Amino acid sequence: MVIGAVDIKGFEKQYRATLISSITGYKAANMVGTISADGFLNLAVFSSVVHVGSNPPLIGIITRPVENERHTYQNILNSGFYTVNAISHSMHERAHQTSARYPVEVSEFEACSFKAAFHNGFLAPFVEESPLKLACSLQEEIHIRSNNTRMLVGSIESIHLDEHLLGSDGYIHLDKADIVAISSLDGYNRVAPPDRYQYAKPYAKSAKL
Amino acid sequence: MVIGAVDIKGFEKQYRATLISSITGYKAANMVGTISADGFLNLAVFSSVVHVGSNPPLIGIITRPVENERHTYQNILNSGFYTVNAISHSMHERAHQTSARYPVEVSEFEACSFKAAFHNGFLAPFVEESPLKLACSLQEEIHIRSNNTRMLVGSIESIHLDEHLLGSDGYIHLDKADIVAISSLDGYNRVAPPDRYQYAKPYAKSAKL
Repeated sequence: MVIGAVDIKGFEKQYRATLISSITGYKAANMVGTISADGFLNLAVFSSVVHVGSNPPLIGIITRPVENERHTYQNILNSGFYTVNAISHSMHERAHQTSARYPVEVSEFEACSFKAAFHNGFLAPFVEESPLKLACSLQEEIHIRSNNTRMLVGSIESIHLDEHLLGSDGYIHLDKADIVAISSLDGYNRVAPPDRYQYAKPYAKSAKL
Repeated sequence: MVIGAVDIKGFEKQYRATLISSITGYKAANMVGTISADGFLNLAVFSSVVHVGSNPPLIGIITRPVENERHTYQNILNSGFYTVNAISHSMHERAHQTSARYPVEVSEFEACSFKAAFHNGFLAPFVEESPLKLACSLQEEIHIRSNNTRMLVGSIESIHLDEHLLGSDGYIHLDKADIVAISSLDGYNRVAPPDRYQYAKPYAKSAKL
């Protein structure tokens, strides 16, 4: 079946959001931890954390500076620092609950039963139980004019992970920590171990690693 | 274990690329189809297709305008149009092979055994066997100054999908088409069906859909 641009425009708002949030495929499952200028902790699930580059190590978060993503956005702009914490299967139900609109003075760490931790003097709270945690510093705020959203580009200051997840070639075995993927707005999917392939060469068949 | 910024900077190039490409979690698995001004078809695997917004329906591709992503980048800028085609498990090995550096006059559709198709007069080739295909038009090219990459923001002109994948609420069941997720640079992971949750409300427990 074909769904056209006019169809999409005419869909009921929630139906359209569910559909269009599905179409790019699976998304990374992370929670972003921040602290406000008043010292309130914030934690929010994000499916829009993306790889931007490896050298220097950069990641992006696409965010709408309004409504329930507002606390995270304001805190990152104010402090310049944030953590990104991968969501494992055992955490996913509580992680989804961080998307509720709690008042700014309520910490989603407490409300959703995650232990906050500070490490190495870094000014943003980590999710202690997350198997893969990143400390990030804001480098660049990019305005996406097409829909008035923002991409926040951050530099990786440190990576905190369970040692058994790290392969000898630098590959992080997300599956060994049962890290989930997100589909659409509200789907959390478990993921099987990977098939990995060698760097592809022209006129050949892809070879497994 | 903790890996710091100085460690990351000192890693061997391929190790660092494998590590940093892993840290954000699972990524969408898509191939981008384009046509050059000379009529050469191009097809390339991308793990950087991201959701930007639902109304209007927008997606982004983060790309480095050099080397093996160059043909796609140039073709999108020249023509303004491209397709995004989800990768199912049965396609993933051939999809990886599209990342090899073929000369511009070689079509990766042919070299990697994908049938190209044109639909509804749209000026970019679709991957016929893909279960979820998007026709996109370029809206905005964004310069990411931190590492001199680009985000190409495109509008969804049409969605082509197998009807049995579409739920009554707009959710696309990626798992029913065995669409894979990408991990790091070269990992292709099968994905289980989702657990889905209701819109989260404060001071409650997340409720399954």
